[in-house]
Amino acid sequence: MNPSLTNGQQNAIAYLEQLKHKAFPSSQKVYSEGQLHPIQVGMREIQHGSPESIERLRVYDTSGPYTDPNHHLNLSEGLTKIREKWVAGRLGNTQLSYARQGIITPEMEYVAIRENQGLSQLDVPKRLHSGENRPLNITPEFVRDEIARGRAVIPVNHNHPESEPMIIGRNFLVKVNANIGNSALGSSIEEEVEKLVWAVHWGADTVMDLSTGKNIHETREWIIRNSPVPIGTVPIYQALEKVGGIAEDLSWPIFKETLIEQAEQGVDYFTIHAGVRREHIPLASNRVTGIVSRGGSIMAKWCLAHRKESFLYTHFEEICELLQQYDICFSLGDGLRPGSIADANDAAQFAELETLGELTDVAWKHNVQTFIEGPGHVPMHLIQANMDKQLEHCKEAPFYTLGPLTTDIAPGYDHITSGIGAAQIAWYGCAMLCYVTPKEHLGLPNKEDVKEGLIAYKIAAHAADLAKGHPGAQLRDDALSRARYEFRWEDQFNLGLDPERARAFHDETLPKASGKSAHFCSMCGPKFCSMKISQEVAALKSPLNNPNDLERHSTSHQPHKDATEASVIVSDR
Amino acid sequence: MNPSLTNGQQNAIAYLEQLKHKAFPSSQKVYSEGQLHPIQVGMREIQHGSPESIERLRVYDTSGPYTDPNHHLNLSEGLTKIREKWVAGRLGNTQLSYARQGIITPEMEYVAIRENQGLSQLDVPKRLHSGENRPLNITPEFVRDEIARGRAVIPVNHNHPESEPMIIGRNFLVKVNANIGNSALGSSIEEEVEKLVWAVHWGADTVMDLSTGKNIHETREWIIRNSPVPIGTVPIYQALEKVGGIAEDLSWPIFKETLIEQAEQGVDYFTIHAGVRREHIPLASNRVTGIVSRGGSIMAKWCLAHRKESFLYTHFEEICELLQQYDICFSLGDGLRPGSIADANDAAQFAELETLGELTDVAWKHNVQTFIEGPGHVPMHLIQANMDKQLEHCKEAPFYTLGPLTTDIAPGYDHITSGIGAAQIAWYGCAMLCYVTPKEHLGLPNKEDVKEGLIAYKIAAHAADLAKGHPGAQLRDDALSRARYEFRWEDQFNLGLDPERARAFHDETLPKASGKSAHFCSMCGPKFCSMKISQEVAALKSPLNNPNDLERHSTSHQPHKDATEASVIVSDR
Repeated sequence: MNPSLTNGQQNAIAYLEQLKHKAFPSSQKVYSEGQLHPIQVGMREIQHGSPESIERLRVYDTSGPYTDPNHHLNLSEGLTKIREKWVAGRLGNTQLSYARQGIITPEMEYVAIRENQGLSQLDVPKRLHSGENRPLNITPEFVRDEIARGRAVIPVNHNHPESEPMIIGRNFLVKVNANIGNSALGSSIEEEVEKLVWAVHWGADTVMDLSTGKNIHETREWIIRNSPVPIGTVPIYQALEKVGGIAEDLSWPIFKETLIEQAEQGVDYFTIHAGVRREHIPLASNRVTGIVSRGGSIMAKWCLAHRKESFLYTHFEEICELLQQYDICFSLGDGLRPGSIADANDAAQFAELETLGELTDVAWKHNVQTFIEGPGHVPMHLIQANMDKQLEHCKEAPFYTLGPLTTDIAPGYDHITSGIGAAQIAWYGCAMLCYVTPKEHLGLPNKEDVKEGLIAYKIAAHAADLAKGHPGAQLRDDALSRARYEFRWEDQFNLGLDPERARAFHDETLPKASGKSAHFCSMCGPKFCSMKISQEVAALKSPLNNPNDLERHSTSHQPHKDATEASVIVSDR
Repeated sequence: MNPSLTNGQQNAIAYLEQLKHKAFPSSQKVYSEGQLHPIQVGMREIQHGSPESIERLRVYDTSGPYTDPNHHLNLSEGLTKIREKWVAGRLGNTQLSYARQGIITPEMEYVAIRENQGLSQLDVPKRLHSGENRPLNITPEFVRDEIARGRAVIPVNHNHPESEPMIIGRNFLVKVNANIGNSALGSSIEEEVEKLVWAVHWGADTVMDLSTGKNIHETREWIIRNSPVPIGTVPIYQALEKVGGIAEDLSWPIFKETLIEQAEQGVDYFTIHAGVRREHIPLASNRVTGIVSRGGSIMAKWCLAHRKESFLYTHFEEICELLQQYDICFSLGDGLRPGSIADANDAAQFAELETLGELTDVAWKHNVQTFIEGPGHVPMHLIQANMDKQLEHCKEAPFYTLGPLTTDIAPGYDHITSGIGAAQIAWYGCAMLCYVTPKEHLGLPNKEDVKEGLIAYKIAAHAADLAKGHPGAQLRDDALSRARYEFRWEDQFNLGLDPERARAFHDETLPKASGKSAHFCSMCGPKFCSMKISQEVAALKSPLNNPNDLERHSTSHQPHKDATEASVIVSDR
């Protein structure tokens, strides 16, 4: 321990160090190699099964080198620059320009391997229906083609060589973004990296750094240098800091300077609210909740104050030229998204979406990879229209939505109100989901809130992957269900999204080790366990034609006398 | 305090007593009167708005007399028998038989008033699309007609006159069931009633008593006498107790005796797994998780052991005759529902569903109100087929599903995995949702788990009500959204499903009273609050043609110096 470090710093380091060996139980880091390029794609392998028949399930792993026991933690130096050689000499070229030329980059092969989760076609359950346009095995060529069509993006700034390539597109696994930002006074590199790693540990595929205030540049530097996932920002926030928080004082030169500063650092995608045009603002005037995007409200204020078109719109081609130099993606912001059920799918929202479609064409002309942000607050019956219109106006550029929340009446539970909408829109084709924590609308999320938000969104994303028939999505469900049926409690915990919580819940009523091999749990108790009876049924079926066997079996069944009688609040019927 | 009571009993009484005055803040119990019958329908009225313009929102209230300050708690005597006069002389008549004769019972008028939540047609937001077959105002005649068609049920045993009538049907508000059961040794009437009331306090529309073990009869008596909501049971559980837990020893006489015992006590609906026929059992033999319904697995074992058709199926008409005498509803159990994503929508499940359709006809012939239980574990893309097939085979009898869970990979979070599926199937037409708690598959839910499960399911039900355009569903969302936009924090908490949690979350970062009127929260901080900027934008718009006004406004905007700088992990983009 370094005595000059604060408690917060020491805790952060302790957390990061232990991840190498016990991020998840019964799991180890494994790497798959490329065939076209010398690449190593990290995955997590979960060991399960019976002692006689050990199985290994590879799952998608967003945690980067932090969960590799061989990783040497050096926060001030940052992660190994795995993409350094790949990006040499790329200036002005983007994944989109390569894809259009028919070139398969190392990034493209990387994401193809990653999306397949180490499966061969043989492993994929037969009952899976294949998703539209999607092969059972994701090939590098398929990736290239999807990128060339603009249907998918790989956000990778040349200046963020530490990142592990990932793909966002509706014919790939649904991705999840988590937002983080700088803490109040007294932040440190250790604590900022801890927040980042906490998010990727729980499955964040990308992280948006929404820091404001002092030290914004330095904080972002710490985060990017230590991030294995793409980092997104909303540059208008920093630009606004530069003008003392007065929206009217913003200008194109200040904004451009901010873009360059962040591009040089290695930000992988920028949220830019260029679709909030002056003429759209009156359309939002009768809303219940007005303009709820911060970027949108800032730009609306600027337009009204100056009685001019938004400088983000008028300078859009210049922004494209800049992004192309670094291969930064556009995340075209939905500044006029609805902030309440009442305002969903209104004229303001869809007018902006049409503008985002126009801007997508402009970005593509400049070989800039582009995806589109979406709402927000939308009742279930209006969600499909959001997806359909986005695909139409934005020519199938990937959609990236915030929820949507399907009701406004549950502050404190908006990870659930929005998880419902997120699962639904992801199934319809949304490529990435921006998480919402239980603190949404109420305050600053803490670590537990970030985890709750991420788990809810990993559930939504996976439910959609299953429904879309993504190769391999069902393997994990099947492995866990088999463990459940066979009373392999440890496997049931370890194959889940949060082994620690599953185990803790089980421990509450059956804390002893014997409970982990018991053929029942406290939910139904020993006499009423359907899985146990079901296994007895299976055993009964074969000797059906042999009355003696049958009798022997049926009389040998005695109620468990050694187990607790306490069955109780049960959730089966 | 009575010194002879245990701590548990004293706590239970203290909880029940305080509910009369502070179950929910800024809320009071109000009653609407009938026009056809002398009935009093209880609702909760939430006061909100500005001091100059106080508004009152009536919301559906499942909590019964416990939240009425005039209620006199007397657990051994039970609740007032409000339906005593209505049911006099009804023997052999059911809500269904009355409905078919064109008679509007007090129960029918009661639920019509209740479903409207005290609204007149004028209150309903114009943008609401009307749900199929549903008028903007629910009339007693509409209720009668829906019951006559078998599309809705009012579960009310003549012997449960304490209950407040409620309706289950897809043209009404989506309902939620919570399961409770007796605790281990040392239970008391106070503690059992506390569990029941905790569930209705958090919105349970019906409660299933799934008690097992000793004292099962007495526990049920306590629950029914003190329950303002319908009580459901699975009688096979008690029958199994009577034969020492040996499924093979069950018989029709023992089952019938159990039915009569529970019918006499006042159980309002029975889950009966009469659709598990002997011929269906082999269809489940290749499943990943076998038969996961306890009732289903018990009956499967019985059929195989005896090599006979299920006695529930062969004696079904006798069961109907018995239920008709008391006006008990069938909840036709789905004993072969899938227990994993892998087993969803398989031949076993749908064979049983067809049998349930046959049985529905038989029940209706006997004037027995009937609804149908459904899965379970179903991926999103297979949910719609469940609803469609149920409507088809069961001729629109109400559907009552357990979730469904949309993935198996998140033990510890199955209130969320299933909340997603529950919202979806309710939108498609499912009439009642059986809740799932976070402890599902892992152990016995505690009080907090019950609440978490209920809130997740109230969210799912309300999201579906909104999507179905139920009159009045949107009023609460709109009221809350307006409070949010106007920074009326107290109203935002009070209009939500869980005011206590919303307030506690807000207190974590802005605990002072001043934070409750602040025009920002800690999520974005004072400089980045979109709602605040949006209001400034609104203020800017009117003086657009008056440059002097504009200038005055724009220069008067200064960053808040008195507020914390700490903006941080934000979830907006």
